Amino acid sequence: MTFMPPTHNNNPHLPFGDQRTAPWYGKDILSVKQFDRNKLSYTFEVAHEMRIMVERIGAFDLLKGKILANLFYEPSTRTSSSFTAAMERLGGSVIPINEVRYSSVSKGESLPDTVRSLECYADVIVLRHPEVGASSLAAKYARKPVINAGDGIGEHPTQALLDLFTISEELGHLDGLTVTMLGDLKNGRTVHSLARLLSLYDVKLNYVSPEILKMPKEIIDEIDAKGLQQSEYKQFDDVISESDVLYVTRVQKERFKDKKEYESVKGAYVITPKTMVKAKEKMIIMHPLPRVGEISMELDDDPRAAYFRQMEYGLYIRMALLAMVLGKA
Amino acid sequence: MTFMPPTHNNNPHLPFGDQRTAPWYGKDILSVKQFDRNKLSYTFEVAHEMRIMVERIGAFDLLKGKILANLFYEPSTRTSSSFTAAMERLGGSVIPINEVRYSSVSKGESLPDTVRSLECYADVIVLRHPEVGASSLAAKYARKPVINAGDGIGEHPTQALLDLFTISEELGHLDGLTVTMLGDLKNGRTVHSLARLLSLYDVKLNYVSPEILKMPKEIIDEIDAKGLQQSEYKQFDDVISESDVLYVTRVQKERFKDKKEYESVKGAYVITPKTMVKAKEKMIIMHPLPRVGEISMELDDDPRAAYFRQMEYGLYIRMALLAMVLGKA
Amino acid sequence: MTFMPPTHNNNPHLPFGDQRTAPWYGKDILSVKQFDRNKLSYTFEVAHEMRIMVERIGAFDLLKGKILANLFYEPSTRTSSSFTAAMERLGGSVIPINEVRYSSVSKGESLPDTVRSLECYADVIVLRHPEVGASSLAAKYARKPVINAGDGIGEHPTQALLDLFTISEELGHLDGLTVTMLGDLKNGRTVHSLARLLSLYDVKLNYVSPEILKMPKEIIDEIDAKGLQQSEYKQFDDVISESDVLYVTRVQKERFKDKKEYESVKGAYVITPKTMVKAKEKMIIMHPLPRVGEISMELDDDPRAAYFRQMEYGLYIRMALLAMVLGKA
Repeated sequence: MTFMPPTHNNNPHLPFGDQRTAPWYGKDILSVKQFDRNKLSYTFEVAHEMRIMVERIGAFDLLKGKILANLFYEPSTRTSSSFTAAMERLGGSVIPINEVRYSSVSKGESLPDTVRSLECYADVIVLRHPEVGASSLAAKYARKPVINAGDGIGEHPTQALLDLFTISEELGHLDGLTVTMLGDLKNGRTVHSLARLLSLYDVKLNYVSPEILKMPKEIIDEIDAKGLQQSEYKQFDDVISESDVLYVTRVQKERFKDKKEYESVKGAYVITPKTMVKAKEKMIIMHPLPRVGEISMELDDDPRAAYFRQMEYGLYIRMALLAMVLGKA
Repeated sequence: MTFMPPTHNNNPHLPFGDQRTAPWYGKDILSVKQFDRNKLSYTFEVAHEMRIMVERIGAFDLLKGKILANLFYEPSTRTSSSFTAAMERLGGSVIPINEVRYSSVSKGESLPDTVRSLECYADVIVLRHPEVGASSLAAKYARKPVINAGDGIGEHPTQALLDLFTISEELGHLDGLTVTMLGDLKNGRTVHSLARLLSLYDVKLNYVSPEILKMPKEIIDEIDAKGLQQSEYKQFDDVISESDVLYVTRVQKERFKDKKEYESVKGAYVITPKTMVKAKEKMIIMHPLPRVGEISMELDDDPRAAYFRQMEYGLYIRMALLAMVLGKA
Repeated sequence: MTFMPPTHNNNPHLPFGDQRTAPWYGKDILSVKQFDRNKLSYTFEVAHEMRIMVERIGAFDLLKGKILANLFYEPSTRTSSSFTAAMERLGGSVIPINEVRYSSVSKGESLPDTVRSLECYADVIVLRHPEVGASSLAAKYARKPVINAGDGIGEHPTQALLDLFTISEELGHLDGLTVTMLGDLKNGRTVHSLARLLSLYDVKLNYVSPEILKMPKEIIDEIDAKGLQQSEYKQFDDVISESDVLYVTRVQKERFKDKKEYESVKGAYVITPKTMVKAKEKMIIMHPLPRVGEISMELDDDPRAAYFRQMEYGLYIRMALLAMVLGKA
């Protein structure tokens, strides 16, 4: 991303900054490492304004005339739909490019060339790619802003931001909270990124997982260096009552070599109404979705079940990021 | 679908009602059984206004800022395109979700979860699904309106409504007509739904089909209970001259165990210019499309060939339904 | 395409003509043969205005309310995205129909029926099809304008037009230029169409290719009849210094029966910074993209590398053609 000449702001009366003062104008969103507390606070303010606007009028023309290239090299209906909706609710348009096997990629074209071609048509590029580092590579070559929508086992920063924004909006603050992460903490890109973001705040982290799916040592060390209190558990019964946030992820059968071991642990990580008896009245349950049995559907009507609202916060975060990199916030 | 709080109508000067008085606001469209004569009449009035607006100005902003999630679990280019165009001509946007194998469905997510996720982004959900009852299930869980775009051998209500609307617009009335249905009347979801809707009017129904593809007894009984005159034929020569509407469906080779039987009957259900000699001057020929030989292309320039106009009426019906469930008509 | 009744121009103050005077209103774009110097000049003027508008305001509402059916029977991400962006930058909407195996085509429907169905929803149809003559067939049956986006080894007129427009915009004129075409000149639909369009101008053409991939005799004869100077070479070293335009295409391994022959020639058609030492300071390098090694990435920052700008000119050409056939230019 190199500097782009400012164009005029068509919406002077909207509660959003113009490009001359927009701090994220023209920037890429590649990693949660780009965000400190100030930047998170700024992003969440913009996302909160998006929420208010959507609740009040549904959609508005902040990005009218802007085009998003939604470039997905692997399927992700949820993320793709969320960015599409975000752009459309801001009055912009979308070029969907979903069919990997069909794109010129299969003719052997390099990612840099694809990105440099697409930016001839679009104003911003959202990239989902199975390989770590793909979005950095794309951003290196692109003149237009690139937003990383997941690069393999690398990062998925907009998911981490929406997770943190969910906690912030639902509970009103971040400092002082106890956040319990549950399930597959070894392979979950989501929980790693969220833990890193949470380490910027004064929180207590609990990790509940089977032995073979524990939070990786390098993440624990990294967070330890920030001085946070972290504890590991095998059973969530031990920590449910003190938790403000319960972040559930799936324990996948495929991760276990010994299927008997899977059978023996799987039941221990399923949340039911019975689980919730011990939980705080204001606790929230989160899940990156899709779930496959790890949260009982009976729980869906419990006001603490925040996982569908979490999707909605994702919309506001993505609206905010699009507006920010396009110089409108 | 539970009640949604009214938002303000942005288009007070348009010839469409506002949400406070909109009778279909927030409702689902799942079955033709939801429609009686009054409701059909209301729907067709709205669809007729849509026709006038499209003919006059092409598109307008009745649903500006609204988003349709077009959720197709099986391919149907025609229906999908029709809903897309309907939403776009009303100034709204579309999130297309067509690639079933790619969606989170393949990760094992339940339809209720998919719908509850999508409604975080969208204002209305159109659902095509191979299984009977899928749209009812979706509607049970969704807070936003669900429109059934075909659920397996269940219903395809928007097709039935557009079929009836076509007859109404082309011939100016429904009572007093003789409607002849031709071809595969056993397996045709289309003709079953249309027959049910027609039974609300004072019409005469003729069924022309091979023995093994006759209109099912339960449908005949159902319509008989309403007091309508119904007759069955093996040859359309016998009824062509008295018909006001000739509704043609395909006789598929796959339906016949005995291929010789197929060969012996197939020619008997092909409409050619010669067929039309005996037909009324104002008769209309309809077909749900795609056709594969059952109506000769030579007939396309005959003004009685209504099957492409029928597609266009489908656009107006779908515009009407979208506007209705979103509280704008 | 038959005559369509004029509708009013919603944008009287825009620098574009209205339908009564729009020479391309309602016409199809099927072949470069439809264009003479005057028509090219007109098209390029409109495309240049599109460029100015996009550079100044990004997008505008010239085609607001219009719908493009983007009908792709074979994948072409680049062309499809380009038309989508063109329509969206003009304020119009797109119905994407990309999944061939999923469309009613697989149920055996004829192209004429598909087109006549789609035009019930759309205002203009862009068609990509693997068979020569498909777009002519579609145009014969369609009432709405059809734009050929490539029909097999037939034509791809919008590519040829954008190639010529690129030269015109980059170098300011066409007469008097020396254009060198390099690579696979036998199978390249692109270079054939461009050579034909260039033959309307006073240019000199050089062809550089391996023996088995020479420019076909019928094209050379056709251009010879126009009185143009043409020369054939095996090495581009001989002509690089006199070229104003170097149009590079890929030499595909699959074209060679004798793989040793491929190995012996492939290196001779790769452009590197070293190549450029001999080139004019104002020469431009073009490529239809995607490239796979035939132009070194080291060259991308050379201002003479015009191949990504070429993509952008494609956007303006497609915006121009859409506006023209819809009566807005």
